[in-house]
Amino acid sequence: MDEQLKLPGGLYSPFVRRVIWALKLKAIPYEFIEEDFANKSPLLLKYNPVHKKIPVFLHGDKTVCESMIIVEYIDEVWPQNPLLPNDPYERALARFWVKFAEDKGTALWRMFPSRGEELEKAKKETLEMLQTVEEHGIGEKKFFGGESIGIADIAFGSVVHGLEVIEEAVGEGAIFEAHRFPRLHAWIKNFKQVPVIKENLPERDWMVTLFKNRREALVGSA
Amino acid sequence: MDEQLKLPGGLYSPFVRRVIWALKLKAIPYEFIEEDFANKSPLLLKYNPVHKKIPVFLHGDKTVCESMIIVEYIDEVWPQNPLLPNDPYERALARFWVKFAEDKGTALWRMFPSRGEELEKAKKETLEMLQTVEEHGIGEKKFFGGESIGIADIAFGSVVHGLEVIEEAVGEGAIFEAHRFPRLHAWIKNFKQVPVIKENLPERDWMVTLFKNRREALVGSA
Repeated sequence: MDEQLKLPGGLYSPFVRRVIWALKLKAIPYEFIEEDFANKSPLLLKYNPVHKKIPVFLHGDKTVCESMIIVEYIDEVWPQNPLLPNDPYERALARFWVKFAEDKGTALWRMFPSRGEELEKAKKETLEMLQTVEEHGIGEKKFFGGESIGIADIAFGSVVHGLEVIEEAVGEGAIFEAHRFPRLHAWIKNFKQVPVIKENLPERDWMVTLFKNRREALVGSA
Repeated sequence: MDEQLKLPGGLYSPFVRRVIWALKLKAIPYEFIEEDFANKSPLLLKYNPVHKKIPVFLHGDKTVCESMIIVEYIDEVWPQNPLLPNDPYERALARFWVKFAEDKGTALWRMFPSRGEELEKAKKETLEMLQTVEEHGIGEKKFFGGESIGIADIAFGSVVHGLEVIEEAVGEGAIFEAHRFPRLHAWIKNFKQVPVIKENLPERDWMVTLFKNRREALVGSA
């Protein structure tokens, strides 16, 4: 590598995961620095003073923040195995679904620390998000962009994998049901079968236990 | 023009405004179709079935949705007077502030139809957004990207111009005060002095009256 690439963060983070997938899909060597940023370390304040959140991606003396902006940066600097199509219209469509995942995906993360009315509201919004992608996002295609994995798949892969963990950690009924979302189920199966994704998915039981414990610490056990 | 370019929408919309600025900055001829989409016309359902919102940009038989995605599409199809820098890192920085405007700018629009506690919350978040841009976004530069107007200026130009109208329409105290946000005030002055922007700013009094009337219809007069 020409300049040092560093990714500090936690393997549990679905947002850090997007960056890992992009780097691995492009076979770019980098250094992962396992670090607990829960306590908003001074390092994080230095790297990402605006949001104070992971992921941050360090490329030499340059710092890039926001998971999907990092993924697009990586795609522009290392063009092998492109994650965005060449055609401007296809690019706009991919970006549309990335933005949708970013904007509507937040409902999922609001389920995690909530109960009662707030949980129901977040659940409802999560279902609406899935319904929209089921109806308009995938169609009969293998991936969002067609035959190969791209930036919208990375964005939603993290959302749907997160959902599978969160719905189990929350434990109040299934949300992502195969009979309701057949296209999305076929798509996530395709996604997880891509060798690089398969090899870089966090261990499910470990994630569920982690999120369950955190949830109990936040809102108490059911 | 090689293919028909159409922009249906209302001149009052701060999101349609972003697209108009991009097209005008690049001197691209297009047809503006004044249309009231308040009633969610069947046309809008056809163009933007996911969000049912303007702006939508019609380029021949292609439809692009989401204001900032349209601006980036326009920049890729018509490269004259580029709105994004060439360097990937500079591009990532520009996209960071665009995303910030998109995510945090929503607080401003929540002020418009609210009163009481909800209004105070939206006001507080709007102030926090401005404070962050004041501290981290502009520095001593003329525009976000340096000497020439770019995509982050378009994103925030619409937010700040919207704010100037909304704070007057809401009429419960100034928010965007010069002594609190000197850099942002210098920046918006620079922005509005760009001839293309100046010529394509909606008439302020017209906007204030329009938003005041709409607000009264929604929440009653003060």
